[in-house]
Amino acid sequence: MPTRQLHLGAFMRPVTIHTGGWRWPGAWADANFSFPRLKHLIQRLEAAKFDAFFMADHLALLNMPIEALRRSHTVTSFDPLTLLPALAAVTERIGLIATASTTYNDPYHVARKFASLDHISNGRAGWNLVTTANPDAALNFGQDAHMAHGERYKRAREFYDVVTGLWDSFADDAFLRDQESGIFWDSARMHVLDHKGPELSVRGPLNVARPVQGWPVIVQAGASEAGRQIGAETAEMIFAAGGPIADARAFYADVKSRAAAAGRDPEQLKILPGCLVVVGESIEEARAKRARLDALVHYESAIGSLSSLLGVDASRFDPDGPLPDIPETESSKSGRERAIRLAEREGLTVRQLAQRIGGYAGAAMVGTPASIADEMEEWLETRACDGFNIMFPHVPEGLEDFVTGVVPELQRRGLFRTEYTGTTLRDHLRLKRPQNRFFEQARAAE
Amino acid sequence: MPTRQLHLGAFMRPVTIHTGGWRWPGAWADANFSFPRLKHLIQRLEAAKFDAFFMADHLALLNMPIEALRRSHTVTSFDPLTLLPALAAVTERIGLIATASTTYNDPYHVARKFASLDHISNGRAGWNLVTTANPDAALNFGQDAHMAHGERYKRAREFYDVVTGLWDSFADDAFLRDQESGIFWDSARMHVLDHKGPELSVRGPLNVARPVQGWPVIVQAGASEAGRQIGAETAEMIFAAGGPIADARAFYADVKSRAAAAGRDPEQLKILPGCLVVVGESIEEARAKRARLDALVHYESAIGSLSSLLGVDASRFDPDGPLPDIPETESSKSGRERAIRLAEREGLTVRQLAQRIGGYAGAAMVGTPASIADEMEEWLETRACDGFNIMFPHVPEGLEDFVTGVVPELQRRGLFRTEYTGTTLRDHLRLKRPQNRFFEQARAAE
Repeated sequence: MPTRQLHLGAFMRPVTIHTGGWRWPGAWADANFSFPRLKHLIQRLEAAKFDAFFMADHLALLNMPIEALRRSHTVTSFDPLTLLPALAAVTERIGLIATASTTYNDPYHVARKFASLDHISNGRAGWNLVTTANPDAALNFGQDAHMAHGERYKRAREFYDVVTGLWDSFADDAFLRDQESGIFWDSARMHVLDHKGPELSVRGPLNVARPVQGWPVIVQAGASEAGRQIGAETAEMIFAAGGPIADARAFYADVKSRAAAAGRDPEQLKILPGCLVVVGESIEEARAKRARLDALVHYESAIGSLSSLLGVDASRFDPDGPLPDIPETESSKSGRERAIRLAEREGLTVRQLAQRIGGYAGAAMVGTPASIADEMEEWLETRACDGFNIMFPHVPEGLEDFVTGVVPELQRRGLFRTEYTGTTLRDHLRLKRPQNRFFEQARAAE
Repeated sequence: MPTRQLHLGAFMRPVTIHTGGWRWPGAWADANFSFPRLKHLIQRLEAAKFDAFFMADHLALLNMPIEALRRSHTVTSFDPLTLLPALAAVTERIGLIATASTTYNDPYHVARKFASLDHISNGRAGWNLVTTANPDAALNFGQDAHMAHGERYKRAREFYDVVTGLWDSFADDAFLRDQESGIFWDSARMHVLDHKGPELSVRGPLNVARPVQGWPVIVQAGASEAGRQIGAETAEMIFAAGGPIADARAFYADVKSRAAAAGRDPEQLKILPGCLVVVGESIEEARAKRARLDALVHYESAIGSLSSLLGVDASRFDPDGPLPDIPETESSKSGRERAIRLAEREGLTVRQLAQRIGGYAGAAMVGTPASIADEMEEWLETRACDGFNIMFPHVPEGLEDFVTGVVPELQRRGLFRTEYTGTTLRDHLRLKRPQNRFFEQARAAE
């Protein structure tokens, strides 16, 4: 029996990360935006004992040329903090992680909505704290320009302090509801935050009882220097970028050691890279599925992605020939290298390379349930991750392939739970309930 | 058969407006903050064919002395836009009205959340547009002082234009999802709002398809001159203050004629006063229930409410004696008159008066199902209202008294539906689906 088990999140906004996935034969093209479809999908994930259903967020249309955008199934999607309460009502155990931006929100609203979701779901909420990458969001929120990267992270750090401080407004035993005396709550068990910082000024208290989990689980995805540092200091789950296993091990070691340096137990921070999974009955079948999926990416959107990665206009190249020599430019050295290596390694034509890049360029596992379980086991055992945020190539079929093929294989190997052992997202992730900074000092000092 | 029927909303935040209601024997003291309780209550309201479940909102603790506040069951309540999606998932027909402030929100978030709720609920969302009365909210949102009344209403009017403009971002037929051609949506059927106004600057488009109802139903509750005017111009339902029937008729006539003057069909604006309903098997039993309920309001919170209304320190008076002569002050003439008249009319002691005021001082109907139906019929027939927003004295019993006693009596008289005839909140309220200003101009001109 392995000593560690995988944690599995399902990255579900969009329901498929692959831009061609909605065109797959039989795919639910409207799944991003259909409550009945999403209800079906989350219930399948819960039956497979996933840790969490995870939703990204976008505060503007994706900033890509209209030729690509009109081919994207992401253009109409639900607000995560509106969808997840509805999904909470039709599930019982699976965690519910919503993304919310610290750049374009007020901390009082964020604290209140996540506290409400945590109570409504009986302790299953997680907050993916982001600073928002798409500069177009600024224009939807009364600003002329997107806040600079450093400023965004400075605000994010203070925002986190305010939100967690608001969650601690009431002691867990503040609400007496004593019908006899008529005292509903004990005002001595309330703390007024009265935060006045460089970026934010928030009095409090929150008008919601402390969340079931103390705090909803804190999730982050930043990969930059500032992103890694705030993640190491505050995150309990990190949605990492994946990539080659050696890079993932280095990222894992870096972030865990930063957490230790910040005085935290590194085990209280779980690292789950994103991973597209394409399952076949044989490796060849899985690879053929991936090729067919990539072929569904229209060339006019794919070539834009490739051009942007290479820093040259790739539409001049012969689509069905090999990639010509690309002059080095200042624009994107690592992306250029990655594309050139990928084309060489797999012998891809310009069209195939463009469709691969334009479909989904990130980490992927393509194979049989056994080969994928082998890969995942290697990642877990060599400390490249604590689990994965799974991305499905299309729904419902791609999700079914995973939950009926890979999950049972992982369970047979003892690498994944066969039943939920707790009720909250913290239980699933083996995370401690945070102490209330204002009412548990004595206990903390023991 | 009457020519008109009542519309019934249930005012459910708090689940009882009466401050003593949570102490009623057998009452669910935690109902404001328990998803299983709220689920039960909304399902009972849906079985009774209510038009809507209506939630107020508070962006700070209520601004009252701590002695009263610690006796209030409102201190921990769910965020409406987090609770209503969860309730949408456990109901099928009843409308879902959430309050959201135009003073302490961004229009892009408000447009997106209500559009998401409208899709998730299949056309059942309503937005109660408020400017926020509690000045303490400012301190939770980074401001030193609450925005002045006139400024708040100016921003509210522009906020409404922006939100409805964002809802019109896409034509209803914009989403093709053509798997064959790979075109997901028709970019010619999208409008970029590009709003630049005195208060707000929002580019758009919204990243959500146009709501099922075109726009969620617009609800307002403002009673001031500015509140009436914005209501007449933009609201489709008004949550009115109630009060004596003659005042209600005058309000009804005023707002409907303002709507006509603004070029609107007055039938497209429904006026539903709030009304506390206490039901007994006899009038005497109902009155005794009300007195018992008022007696559950603790004197130390009641006397504060009375003092504030009278503009004097009423704690100096003999609690069990009659109300002494009260000198006129500048503070609250109409409130002072109302309290003095009420004490005289019903022969109340200072304690009883304080408990009545401190419990719930607004409009109420106290009687049998038949006497309450008589009153409601008179209000409807004499154009004092188009229906009511019902407030229950306590839950679950007070709600059961209404849905098993009064609703069947109204149905027998043909004054209330016995079955839903449509699926959306607009259907229930007999409101038209608004045209899309950017894509239905030709149809509008026909």
